[in-house]
Amino acid sequence: MRTIVPLGPSESELLLGLGSSQTLAEELCAAYPQVVVVSDDNVRRALGDKLFSGYPWATVPAGEGSKSLDRLHALWSFMLEQGLDRRGAVVAVGGGVVADLAGFAASTYMRGVDFYSVPTSLLAMVDASVGGKVGIDLPEGKNLVGQFYPAKKVAVDPDLLGTLPESEWSAGMAEVIKHAVLQGEPLWSHLRGFERVHRQQGELLEHLLARAVEVKVRVVTEDPYEKTGLRATLNLGHTYGHAIEWCSNFALSHGACVGLGLVAGMRLSKNLGLLQQDFEPELLSLLEAWGLPSTLQPAALDAEYRWDRMCQALNRDKKNKDGRWCFVLPVRVGEVTTVWGPSGELVEQAFLSLADPQ
Amino acid sequence: MRTIVPLGPSESELLLGLGSSQTLAEELCAAYPQVVVVSDDNVRRALGDKLFSGYPWATVPAGEGSKSLDRLHALWSFMLEQGLDRRGAVVAVGGGVVADLAGFAASTYMRGVDFYSVPTSLLAMVDASVGGKVGIDLPEGKNLVGQFYPAKKVAVDPDLLGTLPESEWSAGMAEVIKHAVLQGEPLWSHLRGFERVHRQQGELLEHLLARAVEVKVRVVTEDPYEKTGLRATLNLGHTYGHAIEWCSNFALSHGACVGLGLVAGMRLSKNLGLLQQDFEPELLSLLEAWGLPSTLQPAALDAEYRWDRMCQALNRDKKNKDGRWCFVLPVRVGEVTTVWGPSGELVEQAFLSLADPQ
Repeated sequence: MRTIVPLGPSESELLLGLGSSQTLAEELCAAYPQVVVVSDDNVRRALGDKLFSGYPWATVPAGEGSKSLDRLHALWSFMLEQGLDRRGAVVAVGGGVVADLAGFAASTYMRGVDFYSVPTSLLAMVDASVGGKVGIDLPEGKNLVGQFYPAKKVAVDPDLLGTLPESEWSAGMAEVIKHAVLQGEPLWSHLRGFERVHRQQGELLEHLLARAVEVKVRVVTEDPYEKTGLRATLNLGHTYGHAIEWCSNFALSHGACVGLGLVAGMRLSKNLGLLQQDFEPELLSLLEAWGLPSTLQPAALDAEYRWDRMCQALNRDKKNKDGRWCFVLPVRVGEVTTVWGPSGELVEQAFLSLADPQ
Repeated sequence: MRTIVPLGPSESELLLGLGSSQTLAEELCAAYPQVVVVSDDNVRRALGDKLFSGYPWATVPAGEGSKSLDRLHALWSFMLEQGLDRRGAVVAVGGGVVADLAGFAASTYMRGVDFYSVPTSLLAMVDASVGGKVGIDLPEGKNLVGQFYPAKKVAVDPDLLGTLPESEWSAGMAEVIKHAVLQGEPLWSHLRGFERVHRQQGELLEHLLARAVEVKVRVVTEDPYEKTGLRATLNLGHTYGHAIEWCSNFALSHGACVGLGLVAGMRLSKNLGLLQQDFEPELLSLLEAWGLPSTLQPAALDAEYRWDRMCQALNRDKKNKDGRWCFVLPVRVGEVTTVWGPSGELVEQAFLSLADPQ
């Protein structure tokens, strides 16, 4: 399946399906005199013999720490050493960290060389793979510098998920659940019928991926630069989520935090009188099915997640305007609304409801 | 005078004339909640009280050394410290180094904030101010990373040249002479009638600037991304020029090297049988009038400018393709041609003709 995703003045071509990563590799090898592959150590170990073998690979350690200025510099130097010029291409093979770093390096190397992406994690496939956001972190914060630089082609290949660790399935499914709340049908029903065992069934998995990616594609196509507020709806579950992640000192996974953020957000929506369909049982059962928590230990709420720490984190959110917090909240499955500056008390109440009742 | 310069999917507005820098400053102060000024120490000393006073200035030491990754990082941190968000703007007040660095910082900070430019040197006004190229150097070479990110508005204000040192006049005039060879009439005649004393006559200077900037505007409008070869004609005088600059260990000014490059290029064109109008006397007299050399010491041709060193420099040129040197050469005043891989012997001969006959 091939889809063109228009993104402002440029566009991405999305290749979706079993074997699409091989197809993309063949196309690039035929089209470019030089291709530099950017990846992380784990992914290279798993895929380096099968995909782009014989091409120069620049690898970074797995993890957010690689989205640094030092790694960016090393990547530029690697490209220079390889003699890459403007007629060459860069392809990211990995998760979101690799794609962000490689895309930013490609967007700036000799004022921009062609960029391609092969996401290898579920999270990167449904979230980071389309949309054009690339960049790195600074010591002051995440994603503070970057570009809009869409990959010319993105291959989303369910084949590559065969060796994905359980923890990364959870991380990815948290975003799929978020996409399903945003889109509603048919993704919501499809997701509810998708069980762990279905991961081994290529066509079912491909179908789920297609539906989940479609949500992101629609949103970024209609609002590539976050001007209308539509793209900002992808922030569903993330205002609480990012704050919880920060308070946990990143001990909790991003997926777990987004799941918790979805639960707290739904309750805040209820407390604000905005929720018109109570889908809490379905949401909790989806989270549980994919190994995602929906509660926090009561003791932790008096420690790392103390409300003053949470406020500190919420106050740093990039989406804030004029000091007011911004929450994307569900109205029903398939409909969300954006709320600026809700009452701090209600925000706290919904958060405290995450305390494990046991 | 206001001109819209289309540049690919975006555009720059050029404000040209006495007082245009004040006009731009007033427009920005009215339009943005936050403006960060980027400049160098010298320019700030000269202009900081008159232009954008009361705004936060980030200054770097004057000189190419400031186009570094470290300075870029410091600039991003300064913007963060100032609390600059996506609704703010960055304005470069300075020469080409400041504009390149500030523009690249603006293009990448929070994935891009609005960028404006007030060139303060003649060179930056006629050369770097329009065209959208921004970037920094790496230890491996100049301008290796960057972007196309046109300033939204550029103010070219002859008022700011009142305190320009003699050496910078020479540097800028070398590019004006190059533009005149590219355009021919009316700039060529206008330039030949423009004497040192005319620099104090605002209207004559404004007229010269308008004509010289016009050449760059036409070229970058028609070929913003160097696809057709038209923009590459701006490289006239620069193939020899860059090599000479490198061999001199940057002891010779860029302007002096471009002047020498124009002379050697004209002679190479003659040797290749391409030159159809011998304008050597006019070219030499223009260079002399503006304090630019047209010869090198014979002893130096056996030392720093030894032919094997020149070859080493020529081989590193970014415009080379498949190992062949690229020269933009004059056919007549107002017409140039691009030559790939001319005979090394003729290239050497034309270069050696620069030996001072005295």
